[in-house]
Amino acid sequence: MTCNSSIKIGFIGLNSKNTLAVRTHFQAIFQVSSLFEISAIYNDNIEDSLDVIDRLKLQDATAYPSLKEFVSISSIDMVVVTSSGEPIFGNVMSVLDNIRECTNQIRYIFFEWSLNFSIEQTELIVNETRQLGIQTIVSLQSRKSPYIVRAKELIDDGSIGNINSIEVAGNGNWFGYERKQKSPEYIFDIESRRDLVSYCFGHTIDALQYLTGSYFSTINAMIFNNIPEQTLVDEQGRSLGIKVAKNVPDHLLFQGKLIKGNVPVSCTIKGGKPTKKFTKNLVIDIHGTKGDLKIEGDAGFIELSNLVLYHSGVKVDVAPESPDSQANGQVIYDNNEEVLEFFHFRNYNALVGNMVKMYQAIANYDAIIADKFTTYPTPVQSPVKTEDKISLMQGFQMDGFPTLMDALVLYRLVESVYRSNAIGSTLNVSNISQ
Amino acid sequence: MTCNSSIKIGFIGLNSKNTLAVRTHFQAIFQVSSLFEISAIYNDNIEDSLDVIDRLKLQDATAYPSLKEFVSISSIDMVVVTSSGEPIFGNVMSVLDNIRECTNQIRYIFFEWSLNFSIEQTELIVNETRQLGIQTIVSLQSRKSPYIVRAKELIDDGSIGNINSIEVAGNGNWFGYERKQKSPEYIFDIESRRDLVSYCFGHTIDALQYLTGSYFSTINAMIFNNIPEQTLVDEQGRSLGIKVAKNVPDHLLFQGKLIKGNVPVSCTIKGGKPTKKFTKNLVIDIHGTKGDLKIEGDAGFIELSNLVLYHSGVKVDVAPESPDSQANGQVIYDNNEEVLEFFHFRNYNALVGNMVKMYQAIANYDAIIADKFTTYPTPVQSPVKTEDKISLMQGFQMDGFPTLMDALVLYRLVESVYRSNAIGSTLNVSNISQ
Repeated sequence: MTCNSSIKIGFIGLNSKNTLAVRTHFQAIFQVSSLFEISAIYNDNIEDSLDVIDRLKLQDATAYPSLKEFVSISSIDMVVVTSSGEPIFGNVMSVLDNIRECTNQIRYIFFEWSLNFSIEQTELIVNETRQLGIQTIVSLQSRKSPYIVRAKELIDDGSIGNINSIEVAGNGNWFGYERKQKSPEYIFDIESRRDLVSYCFGHTIDALQYLTGSYFSTINAMIFNNIPEQTLVDEQGRSLGIKVAKNVPDHLLFQGKLIKGNVPVSCTIKGGKPTKKFTKNLVIDIHGTKGDLKIEGDAGFIELSNLVLYHSGVKVDVAPESPDSQANGQVIYDNNEEVLEFFHFRNYNALVGNMVKMYQAIANYDAIIADKFTTYPTPVQSPVKTEDKISLMQGFQMDGFPTLMDALVLYRLVESVYRSNAIGSTLNVSNISQ
Repeated sequence: MTCNSSIKIGFIGLNSKNTLAVRTHFQAIFQVSSLFEISAIYNDNIEDSLDVIDRLKLQDATAYPSLKEFVSISSIDMVVVTSSGEPIFGNVMSVLDNIRECTNQIRYIFFEWSLNFSIEQTELIVNETRQLGIQTIVSLQSRKSPYIVRAKELIDDGSIGNINSIEVAGNGNWFGYERKQKSPEYIFDIESRRDLVSYCFGHTIDALQYLTGSYFSTINAMIFNNIPEQTLVDEQGRSLGIKVAKNVPDHLLFQGKLIKGNVPVSCTIKGGKPTKKFTKNLVIDIHGTKGDLKIEGDAGFIELSNLVLYHSGVKVDVAPESPDSQANGQVIYDNNEEVLEFFHFRNYNALVGNMVKMYQAIANYDAIIADKFTTYPTPVQSPVKTEDKISLMQGFQMDGFPTLMDALVLYRLVESVYRSNAIGSTLNVSNISQ
């Protein structure tokens, strides 16, 4: 184990076409470059790897022609799996096979949420990685948003009393009346299921479950494709006079009951560029017996957007766990009993910032694990890769990071949403988190 | 027929306990006293009638000891049926029987929406009144709210383009953590079904259907009773330290598709006094391809509340049909293409005002009908009471008033909401308006 040196990363799928991975993972790693180092790149076409190494000036990175060499020769500690749309499951299985068979020190695999594996694929990877003692991480990074963290603290410390109702409304940019000519094609491929439901709803409802500390017991969903044709537009939004067919959803209606407190939750996700004039494009209203929280964003992507958090409720004396967010909370009104405050970091780049916090959480975890095993009273004789060492699931804990098991629960919820719509039924989903 | 004289009203159920009827019907009639006159009162206990005549100084009104005399002797043109909770269906059937059998000139029966007849009872009254040529009116008076009328005009004239999504959130005052000691008991009797669903949701969703000009094709609902005990409070809201059981709903989640445009509609109705800090207690957001409408109210009762209407969209040149509401609309921003305006009548008393407009609509209708029959080229030889003369349904027309047939369609929707919740299913309700 490399305890005091940086964690070496090998990327699968980082290339010039994968702009979101560049704008999130690469930029985030750049900001925590004392903790992480990009050492290896694999793409199915090695030219893509050489190209991205050149463009991003990754002087410490090597392009590998095969996943076997990527795993066995590269000396990486962590694999980061991203994709700009091409199927990726085969590569993941190949990596796992090679980890099993080759000498290597890989301890972490970091998956994009939007890889959108099927339930069966995810279950397989969860089991394989568990057996191999590989720690998984999934980019449900809104859990690391300072606004979500602060809101969760306010809920947990009783500042709004008991939650008794929630309303969520979000926008999914790609799925409206217009389509940018340069949009990724897989977004509009119904088979890829990287759509309004899996992507936009998935991230938003994960944040909500995380905030409230509860999964759903009961759900109902209706999915719409009311915009069967989109108008192609250029980067400036000017119509190109061409219509293209759209067969992916442009609206989701979702409602359900949280297990904890039987809380009613109403959620709508709407396709299209931000157009609402009297509401923000992301609004989460959480009502409690002693107050309210409101989370707002200009864009409908909770994991990528800078947000504003409003809190109205009671002042609870709790030792501040995150002093910086406390300091940034601006108390407008406080008569000892009631408090009205808001939290906003004007220059917070959420696109990168939430991902930086993910990588920091991994580095923290790595340090704790290393310490735990090096200071263990009796020297550990068992092989280094054991199930004991991995965090199977973050669940609703503040520490750590979401794992593939968290993603599996969420994939099952997304699957239930499609199914509720398809069969026209309210579904009991109490057991999907088990 | 009394063409030029005022319309004589006989009340069933107007008494001192029925404070809402006094505050709406009586006050409204008082404001249009050149058009209407309260001539007769019937209550099951005649003392109640004598008492209310005395208290409200109804010098032209007579208290009748029986419905037979109320119908045959009183010379009334219109029966107004209200109730402070006691069963009223028997009295309605008795009135209809007497109309059939006695000499009388009754042409109108005005029902409270909140009488909440069963579907079968409503169908029976619809058929009976149709056969007798009696015009029904139902107090779904939000249809006469100047805000709803103006919003409907803006939708109809294309000012927001095509509607593509709608969110509704309202409050139902009685059904929260506290119960005023003097609250009417029937509100909390599950059997009376005058609850969050029938009453609060009913009025709100009727306004929404009326605005959009569409019924629902598909719905799903979840009904909650998360507050099984309420705390009794006095008129000032101070706790009396007594808990009382509550078995009626305190929350409704409803979602569905409008027939017209397959528009997604999300609607939540929450019990409890106004407590939301960051949203109003009634919010209707209507999003269109060219703009948005927002309707807000401080209280969750759309039919009784003064509202604010916001409009953002395109300027459409239409001859103003209601010049006074146009004049009150304040244009904030207008560059010929886009317009941002709001409508608010600061001193509008919606509780009385919307009901005044109901009575005015009845008087207008009465004048038109009278004129139609007196100026008919060939003298009408058929009996005065014919089906031809009555407006069976207002539907989505601007003119006129909601009838018992409109109420029947709405009762069926409310029934479908209970059923969707009970059987856990999304329901096709396309046929309930037929």
